Amino acid sequence: MTSPERLSDILTPALAVDVNALDRNIRKMAEFFAFRRCQLRPHFKAHKTPEIARRQLAAGSCTGLTCATVFEAEIAASVCDDILIANEIVGADSCRRVAALAQQVRVTVAIDSTIGLDAISLAARETGATIGALVDVNVGQNRCGVAPGASAVALGTLVAAAPGVTLRGLMGYEGHAVGIADRRERETAVRASMQQLLATKRMFDEAGLATAMISAGGTGSVDIGSAMDGITEIQAGSYALMDTDYARLDLPFEHALFVLGTVISRPAPERCVADCGHKACTKDHGLPSVKDLPGASVLALNDEHAIIALPPGCALAIGDRIQLLPSHIDPTMNLHDVVYALDGDEVVGAWPIAARGYSGAPR
Amino acid sequence: MTSPERLSDILTPALAVDVNALDRNIRKMAEFFAFRRCQLRPHFKAHKTPEIARRQLAAGSCTGLTCATVFEAEIAASVCDDILIANEIVGADSCRRVAALAQQVRVTVAIDSTIGLDAISLAARETGATIGALVDVNVGQNRCGVAPGASAVALGTLVAAAPGVTLRGLMGYEGHAVGIADRRERETAVRASMQQLLATKRMFDEAGLATAMISAGGTGSVDIGSAMDGITEIQAGSYALMDTDYARLDLPFEHALFVLGTVISRPAPERCVADCGHKACTKDHGLPSVKDLPGASVLALNDEHAIIALPPGCALAIGDRIQLLPSHIDPTMNLHDVVYALDGDEVVGAWPIAARGYSGAPR
Repeated sequence: MTSPERLSDILTPALAVDVNALDRNIRKMAEFFAFRRCQLRPHFKAHKTPEIARRQLAAGSCTGLTCATVFEAEIAASVCDDILIANEIVGADSCRRVAALAQQVRVTVAIDSTIGLDAISLAARETGATIGALVDVNVGQNRCGVAPGASAVALGTLVAAAPGVTLRGLMGYEGHAVGIADRRERETAVRASMQQLLATKRMFDEAGLATAMISAGGTGSVDIGSAMDGITEIQAGSYALMDTDYARLDLPFEHALFVLGTVISRPAPERCVADCGHKACTKDHGLPSVKDLPGASVLALNDEHAIIALPPGCALAIGDRIQLLPSHIDPTMNLHDVVYALDGDEVVGAWPIAARGYSGAPR
Repeated sequence: MTSPERLSDILTPALAVDVNALDRNIRKMAEFFAFRRCQLRPHFKAHKTPEIARRQLAAGSCTGLTCATVFEAEIAASVCDDILIANEIVGADSCRRVAALAQQVRVTVAIDSTIGLDAISLAARETGATIGALVDVNVGQNRCGVAPGASAVALGTLVAAAPGVTLRGLMGYEGHAVGIADRRERETAVRASMQQLLATKRMFDEAGLATAMISAGGTGSVDIGSAMDGITEIQAGSYALMDTDYARLDLPFEHALFVLGTVISRPAPERCVADCGHKACTKDHGLPSVKDLPGASVLALNDEHAIIALPPGCALAIGDRIQLLPSHIDPTMNLHDVVYALDGDEVVGAWPIAARGYSGAPR
């Protein structure tokens, strides 16, 4: 198959990124952090694409990258030498992969249990690696993490003493708060979470435990969290590409990602069907929007079909292209092997989404 | 990475298929069709896995395979020489790929417009291929398809006359009806749809148009549709692996697919977090169920996390494995590159999900 040169050459369904919008988003975020003590650790899980991570790091103001899985970290290591796996890694084979990676780049993992600590420590000792660790604190999301305060200090003391493991500080993700659309409500919820993290940090300081990294936040809490003294880095991911779910918030970032489809059926004047269903564009945060077609809206996404309501008199014909703005970029990127980079209508790159999927598979 | 030999060796998250349950489902369906005029055309979109398709075809009673995309058809051609793409293909490049494939195996596509017909005919003439076609009829799903009756006959007449294209009959998918849980309601709705298709078939017969293939149905309408005189094949997909959405119905098939996860956090006695979120197990048909753990239920699927409510006194510990039964197999299979085949706890295969994703990507 020859590489497409123009937008209209791309076989659909496919993912496309507006590189100019992407670069504006990345530059805007880097400039926001340029004169702050708190820095950015872009979340690789949002796009899984080394070329996008490379641009984020090149723009500056970054401590490294955040990853959600060991496989993402292995891929991210091709462009970054300081990686936080902001997640609990507990399986023996997975911990061995973390240890192997830690012999090449600086790696830090999240820990919220002694079982998890023992697994990481064992893998580190087996390989002679040093693996960094943050104590993961539950700051209100009620997913992973130990309770703030004494429980965190108790685990931190064990982490600091574990062979092969270096305690580097604390992590807390206020995932229940970053998406609150109302600005004041979001500020209140984010601050309440981060205050729990910072109160635990003070207890760490008093106990002589390391606090060099206090990692938190996401795209919805960048300016709130970075203004709180003691937070050293924000794990924002969605800002680079954006989606319609984050666009509900008062954020200064543009949509840079869209799903390309082709109209395959035109069964009624007020309706068309395109070839981009939810195997090409997720709907876990709601249905996508139709880009550049005022009055059109997605009625349903089936596996392979988008059913789209059209405004009166719409001239859209079978064979015409449409573009969808995803409601959630992370899982949408995870459906595709490549994202086409566009400068206007010109295809200027075909970037591998190299960390798509899971690496348990023979590749 | 060495290949896993036991269930416990598989890195999570991962997909696993119980080969004995799979083979029982496949055999049961093949035996159901063994003495019928109506045959089965298993839908490859449900699993995208050549090894599963090979077993379906080997069990007999099949006319060929059904596919939803050109890429699936290209992959399916490795195990099958009679492929129906039960979807409208309209882009020039995609039509060229269909034509290229039609030079190797028998290919039939769905057509519901003159624009689509012209595109297929052009590609066929350019390559010297013969592409089969079914007129796609809207039997109530209101997705693709022309209206039953005169509109279908008018299009069928054009298809029959188009160079490079061979009219083979009609298709109509009652997607609005196959999932109705109540048996009587489902029967009524499926029959109403198929009667529209069969009324159109009679008009085709009267007009001298080909009706060798009258293709319809899905897993929820197998016995209803196959009992209606004139339906020549049923496009069932989900029966081989099953999911919790289809398990609501009165179907004689077993769950054969599950998502493997590892408990990574145990933040409270009544709750655990596993590493299999909706990037590993879709939730478009609802949250998955927890297998073999009575009283446990999935509270939420985030990108990388399953948050699971546990029954009182549950001894599940960090590092232990859990298994989820997906609510929808098609998009869940599409998230993974491989499915591990299990005989009990023994891994007897790692089957590539070779048609996962879209082939617009450089591979």
